[in-house]
Amino acid sequence: MKKIVRINMASGETSMENLSGEYAGLGGRGLTSTIVAREVPPLCHALGPQNKLVVAPGLLAGTSCINCGRLSIGAKSPLTGTIKESNVGGTVAQRLGQLQIAALVFEQHAPADKPFYLLVNHEGTTLHPADDLKGLKTYDTVQRLRTKHGDRVGVAAIGPVGEMRLATASVAVSDRDGHASRHAGRGGMGAVMGSKGLKAIVVDAVEAPGVEYQDREAFKAAAKILRTAIVENEATAPKTGSQALYSMNAIMAPVNELGGFPTRNFTRGKFADVRKIDGDALHDTIKARGGVLNHSGCSNCIIQCSNVFVDPEGQYVTSALEYETLFALGANCDIGDLDAVARMDRLCDEYGIDTMETGCSIALAMEAGVVPFGDTEGAIGLLHEIGQGTPLGRILGNGAAMTGQAYGLHRIPVVKRQAFPGYDPRVLKGLGVTYASSPMGADHTAGFAAELTAADMNPEGRVALSLETQVFMAFLDSIGLCMAVLDGATDENGGIAAMVPMVNAVYGWDINAENYGRAVLKTERAFNTAAGFTPQDDRLPEWLHTEPLPPNNTVFDVSYEEMDAAMKL
Amino acid sequence: MKKIVRINMASGETSMENLSGEYAGLGGRGLTSTIVAREVPPLCHALGPQNKLVVAPGLLAGTSCINCGRLSIGAKSPLTGTIKESNVGGTVAQRLGQLQIAALVFEQHAPADKPFYLLVNHEGTTLHPADDLKGLKTYDTVQRLRTKHGDRVGVAAIGPVGEMRLATASVAVSDRDGHASRHAGRGGMGAVMGSKGLKAIVVDAVEAPGVEYQDREAFKAAAKILRTAIVENEATAPKTGSQALYSMNAIMAPVNELGGFPTRNFTRGKFADVRKIDGDALHDTIKARGGVLNHSGCSNCIIQCSNVFVDPEGQYVTSALEYETLFALGANCDIGDLDAVARMDRLCDEYGIDTMETGCSIALAMEAGVVPFGDTEGAIGLLHEIGQGTPLGRILGNGAAMTGQAYGLHRIPVVKRQAFPGYDPRVLKGLGVTYASSPMGADHTAGFAAELTAADMNPEGRVALSLETQVFMAFLDSIGLCMAVLDGATDENGGIAAMVPMVNAVYGWDINAENYGRAVLKTERAFNTAAGFTPQDDRLPEWLHTEPLPPNNTVFDVSYEEMDAAMKL
Repeated sequence: MKKIVRINMASGETSMENLSGEYAGLGGRGLTSTIVAREVPPLCHALGPQNKLVVAPGLLAGTSCINCGRLSIGAKSPLTGTIKESNVGGTVAQRLGQLQIAALVFEQHAPADKPFYLLVNHEGTTLHPADDLKGLKTYDTVQRLRTKHGDRVGVAAIGPVGEMRLATASVAVSDRDGHASRHAGRGGMGAVMGSKGLKAIVVDAVEAPGVEYQDREAFKAAAKILRTAIVENEATAPKTGSQALYSMNAIMAPVNELGGFPTRNFTRGKFADVRKIDGDALHDTIKARGGVLNHSGCSNCIIQCSNVFVDPEGQYVTSALEYETLFALGANCDIGDLDAVARMDRLCDEYGIDTMETGCSIALAMEAGVVPFGDTEGAIGLLHEIGQGTPLGRILGNGAAMTGQAYGLHRIPVVKRQAFPGYDPRVLKGLGVTYASSPMGADHTAGFAAELTAADMNPEGRVALSLETQVFMAFLDSIGLCMAVLDGATDENGGIAAMVPMVNAVYGWDINAENYGRAVLKTERAFNTAAGFTPQDDRLPEWLHTEPLPPNNTVFDVSYEEMDAAMKL
Repeated sequence: MKKIVRINMASGETSMENLSGEYAGLGGRGLTSTIVAREVPPLCHALGPQNKLVVAPGLLAGTSCINCGRLSIGAKSPLTGTIKESNVGGTVAQRLGQLQIAALVFEQHAPADKPFYLLVNHEGTTLHPADDLKGLKTYDTVQRLRTKHGDRVGVAAIGPVGEMRLATASVAVSDRDGHASRHAGRGGMGAVMGSKGLKAIVVDAVEAPGVEYQDREAFKAAAKILRTAIVENEATAPKTGSQALYSMNAIMAPVNELGGFPTRNFTRGKFADVRKIDGDALHDTIKARGGVLNHSGCSNCIIQCSNVFVDPEGQYVTSALEYETLFALGANCDIGDLDAVARMDRLCDEYGIDTMETGCSIALAMEAGVVPFGDTEGAIGLLHEIGQGTPLGRILGNGAAMTGQAYGLHRIPVVKRQAFPGYDPRVLKGLGVTYASSPMGADHTAGFAAELTAADMNPEGRVALSLETQVFMAFLDSIGLCMAVLDGATDENGGIAAMVPMVNAVYGWDINAENYGRAVLKTERAFNTAAGFTPQDDRLPEWLHTEPLPPNNTVFDVSYEEMDAAMKL
């Protein structure tokens, strides 16, 4: 039976319990959110000792299913004050699954300035002093731990900004090359990890028992359907699919074409220099320089949306340079320069901060005149300020809401203090509904309610689409499948329908995706209600209703009454 | 009939309307809160164009009543997100009353970087360019406007921090000497004023029509009862009362004796150096140096709680050096030095920031190690950072909640993001109830529920006392009487009972103080509810329930259930 491991950071003691009782049947986001909702006082301070950091692989982790490597990290968020689950690929989830660990629950605080890392292997879990890792950036942290514990370990770690407990701090997870390039970026989970005095988690699956399948043949059959659906789809096919060739950045051109691509702090919906940073530009640049396209960064990945971006001399700069980063640190800062954004992506990864929140913070600082829009070196300088924890860096490193307040601005693109992803809600209105109503704050992965057609601009039907996608994502985040599969798995090719049978075959259950997703959302919304959130918090900032976005000159006009009714679930 | 004057800062147009309809019968806080509640969208951004700044004298303003010089300034608060009324003494309220102006309502924003000041006199209200006042500190601003418009004007003005729209920005009001020493400090009303592009309000009551009394004789009779009560009370007697001799700082010794005097960022309840800054120290220092005790700073003041603090050479440093400032910038920063706190008080007044919020911010910065506790010159340096708008200054200048977040702290003494005044709620539990439940955030003036005896430590009865004082203060803030009268006017000497007849005599009404106060509180709480606030926001931070305060080693243990029930009003 799968286990929950509890680590008391104050005493250094660890304990293990069966995944049973109220937690039976849960995994990934379903498990992190339920543990947080049951055990964390809703009104506690997110950086205080009563918060808990929960790390849980999805239900399919450890199996041979494709793209099942998502790791859920949950806690009360220091950015939003809500419950939070931020999930990430890389190499840790699969190993925890093989070790039959359902969740690691970090409780209380280590003594001040006494950081630790946790080693997890087939013998158990042990805390080790991490004094020599203090202040280290993420790539170095991962490398040192791999040197010490072997290249086969998966590592999750925070950078200096997590140690500073700033609200944009991410948790980095090592990719298959050992780079700290995968990040649970949203909501400051790295700050919670820092507050606990936890610098890293090292997971070694050598001699792991592996997954116990209740019905291995049924699992294989369903897994094959999903794999075939992915392999045969032109978006997700290995090597030749659009994701493999253009990464997730294939989306930039159509979003820009629709006029919903946020530019210069959400003042325009089309970016003049879009061709310099879009999917084609990324593909051509990487190919010409001998970087890596169709790169598999995460365990069991066959879609290969990752990439390795190299400089003109062919030297490694960063990995997994993606759309959201190119929106936030590119167009939204009026920076149409792939090399510059790649350098910034690496810096964000090294310091351990969310690229989306950071890009929005920098764009606000640009609006305030701290550095001009389009000032690449200025923006890079601001990232170093964050990494060094200067006062300016502490403003930016706490995100868009704090940056806006620090400079007395009132056009601040946040919901529940979390910055918008790269889709302007005045055009992509279904995503606007998700931003407003997700229990996580503004988050496109909480429910990607977009068709990338003119229909997105029609307020009718957006609520239903958002709710449907939010429910399904709550399920997908719980089984640990990568969101990228949704570009290949469809109702037609049976890919979607194959997911539930896989889970049922592993565990001998009879679950239903919609019921599962709804239950997770309900649990999350109940925590938020107990923490004082109301429908009034499920709103976009006022200026999105009054300030038309060029060139479509539309505003966000979905009915909140309709949304509130739907979100009662 | 009294008038409401509306000033559209975008168009420069002003208009006048009778105080009637839903605003009839209202004044001071009752009027500012009702206008904000009726006219400001609860979910708007406090610094956005939809917020309104409302400036209203109390109902007794312009009369010959003693100590009726309070001016209410209201808006949605950029600090707390709640409705806010911050009131201040000085010389403006009385003049507005004489001009029969019930409220000035500032709407929309002036064009960027085009500040104005408003001149109000018997001929009407006119906006004037204030480019030459841009960036000026408050004393200079007031002086220049007095030079231009004559020494008989009253001036309300913001300093550079209000222009920067930081959430601790106050609105300064000139005292009877023309010093910008009186401040509506709480909740960032100066930032709202700055967002409107309004640098100052100049009020000239020459040739003002004066108050129309419906029953002058009844008014005189009631006013005489109150005056006599004040004059004959040992706390409030002119020249010889404890307030005249020791200012409001007479309270420091008993609060410290009880163990409720917040020291070193609320980690201790007694200050080792209390004798260096208490009422005796203040009295003796001012007297020895030839400063002014029993100073009347505000129109019609006979209690004389103000003072003029001079340096060893007898040069003016600041006026109205009071308990809250000596707590926040003194004990709470471990600074037992009257001269240092006096200099800091002046700097806060000059830059236009709340001394309480600022002292708590600096104490948090000290806890984070930015400067050491007790470092006077370091603290003064931090004040200059605020005034200059450096990144560190912008953190501190946005208050304790932002400072705590910037440095990753979790022991942050705020409710609804507003810093505590100088009474630890673990000892003075009735004030803890007020901090938690006031619609304004942590604010002692919203309901001074303390007896300054051991009874304050008993959780029983604190809710009832807090509610009673909150209701009465909502009434007192509406008629514009100074809170200091409550130290002299009692049930026994008839001073309390005389207040309502005064108001009724002026207006020909038949009001009731409790009903009036309850109605104001209800209006305020309704706005907050519509803005998304719930009982979960009516809570003290978790550590006040778990971390005992030395030397009494008590925690805050009043029943929230009891409190929530009472606050349903």
